[in-house]
Amino acid sequence: MKPLHSKTEKVLAAFACICLSAVLSFSAFAAEKTYRLTLAETWGPNFPIFGDATKNMAAMAEKMSNGRLKIRIDSSNKHKSPFGVFDMVKSGQYDMGHSASYYWKGKVPNTLFFTTMPFGMVASEQYGWFYHGDGMALMEEVYAPHNLLSFPGGNTGVQMGGWFQKEINSVDDLEGLKMRIPGFAGEVLAELGASPTNIAPGELYTALERRTIDALEWVGPGLDLRMGFHKIAPYYYTGWHEPATELQFLVNKRTWERLPEDLQEILRVAMRTAAYDMYIQNAHASAEAWEEMTAEYPDIQVKQFPDDVINALRSANTKLLANYADKDAQAKKILDSQQAYLDKIRRWTSISEEAYLQGQ
Amino acid sequence: MKPLHSKTEKVLAAFACICLSAVLSFSAFAAEKTYRLTLAETWGPNFPIFGDATKNMAAMAEKMSNGRLKIRIDSSNKHKSPFGVFDMVKSGQYDMGHSASYYWKGKVPNTLFFTTMPFGMVASEQYGWFYHGDGMALMEEVYAPHNLLSFPGGNTGVQMGGWFQKEINSVDDLEGLKMRIPGFAGEVLAELGASPTNIAPGELYTALERRTIDALEWVGPGLDLRMGFHKIAPYYYTGWHEPATELQFLVNKRTWERLPEDLQEILRVAMRTAAYDMYIQNAHASAEAWEEMTAEYPDIQVKQFPDDVINALRSANTKLLANYADKDAQAKKILDSQQAYLDKIRRWTSISEEAYLQGQ
Repeated sequence: MKPLHSKTEKVLAAFACICLSAVLSFSAFAAEKTYRLTLAETWGPNFPIFGDATKNMAAMAEKMSNGRLKIRIDSSNKHKSPFGVFDMVKSGQYDMGHSASYYWKGKVPNTLFFTTMPFGMVASEQYGWFYHGDGMALMEEVYAPHNLLSFPGGNTGVQMGGWFQKEINSVDDLEGLKMRIPGFAGEVLAELGASPTNIAPGELYTALERRTIDALEWVGPGLDLRMGFHKIAPYYYTGWHEPATELQFLVNKRTWERLPEDLQEILRVAMRTAAYDMYIQNAHASAEAWEEMTAEYPDIQVKQFPDDVINALRSANTKLLANYADKDAQAKKILDSQQAYLDKIRRWTSISEEAYLQGQ
Repeated sequence: MKPLHSKTEKVLAAFACICLSAVLSFSAFAAEKTYRLTLAETWGPNFPIFGDATKNMAAMAEKMSNGRLKIRIDSSNKHKSPFGVFDMVKSGQYDMGHSASYYWKGKVPNTLFFTTMPFGMVASEQYGWFYHGDGMALMEEVYAPHNLLSFPGGNTGVQMGGWFQKEINSVDDLEGLKMRIPGFAGEVLAELGASPTNIAPGELYTALERRTIDALEWVGPGLDLRMGFHKIAPYYYTGWHEPATELQFLVNKRTWERLPEDLQEILRVAMRTAAYDMYIQNAHASAEAWEEMTAEYPDIQVKQFPDDVINALRSANTKLLANYADKDAQAKKILDSQQAYLDKIRRWTSISEEAYLQGQ
């Protein structure tokens, strides 16, 4: 091709370039625009399972968008504020967060209900409530005034009741029991005379070993293994207080609204899949860790709380929830919705998965 | 702008157009290329739950790809070959299929093991085997020689044992029992003297009503409701034979390979999410349908097979599986992998979800 010489030719070429860029700006350039989001997670770097959920989500989003949606994950060592995630995403300092809704109950009381509740739904039931009951709509109602969207962010399944230095044979054994059990479940235990305490994770092992505390709950074998509690406490109680702990993805609403529709859908599906995936990963990791724990420490005794203890805990739980419902119409609406859904779906769970497992 | 006149100008404009299209073909046009895939499903049009999984998957893929990946779903009324899905996707007549792996056992015996097995894993366990155990790799090995990829396509959870006209109180009651129960579970029952039959879905109601058959199994309340069996059979037995029925998405390998990487990931994630979503949708639908059935027919009796019946069925199952393993090294590898995974993860399920549900 011969080089351009005349003025006319230069004008023409410029015209072609304008047309070209006009066309591109409505197709290629717009389609190729990269959105870089930041995410603050409550967990430290390389925290297993919980931290894998954010990495899995971000990797799916980036790959599905062909690199147009990039999410940078900052762990707590970076942002220094594990329990500041709500505020940092609300203010727009971060576009997204990964945490758990019940951490915000001191700030926005009704966020308590979107993680898990004592004696509440198991994972398949709670996902039913979120996606086919009123769960997502109610969660949106609670978070909207804070400029936030909240999505399920990974389920642990039934968490264990915890590691105990002594057996719990009756309600009397709870009197004065010093147990690390934070949040609402701690309030339930306190109703029965126990002394719930919160202790920094790094000090838990020593506190349990030296009997500064009599018991503690963490998660389940998958995350308990590396904490080492099985080496120093003989009893591992089955769960009652967190039957389906669902983590959360938080998204700043303005961030959400400036994403094009295809990237909104990519982000929505990536979060949803990462949440389900974490539920399966945690079941797998728990099975592996439980095998390892019991191979090394075959004397670990798995215990269920006796019926009268369970019934007393249930009564205390019911009483505390009634207090919430009495004081706040939105709390009542959420609790009523959960109870109605649980009543309906548990009848199905009982004749399907529960009956099957019992018959094995 | 003045119109183009001279020959030079025309050449120039043409040059600009060539440059323009060259640029576009490597960005906008390539990025905007639409891939139109076809999917044949085993189910009829508007089949609830199973059919929703394909629609959900296709909708997510289209939206996430901004219309670049469009999947046309043909139900059985269109392609006329519900059990020809394997062959139609293998040959490339369709790009994708939605069906169930165990339908192909007459054609490729080892496909039997990728749906669910009597006395096998429940859904959370089986997803663990697929995604963290050897499940996906083994499924790939079985399907690769047929130019097919297979992915989980939606789980029903524990299927009910079926509707019975008479109670089963002992193994003797199975002798001569005429039951609609197709596939491998039917073979297990036949070992104990029952007469498994297969009857077209449209004739099942009449057959059960007129006692041409004594019993039948379908799925669970969510899909059984509209079949009406609860109106004519008094006993609803809990499940043993299909604890985690996983449907399947089939993809022709050449179709998969010609998709760009971002669309492969979009398709992979859309299938994975649609599968999980169906598990939750089916739990929800079962709960709703069970409420409706029992409100209208409060005398339905839910029964569990007695222990000696369960033990006899388990022995027959073990014997038949041993036959498969003895005859075929790949079958043995798959069955050994499933059993080892089940043994490990059931120990976890027992102390978590099972213990929790029993304590409620």
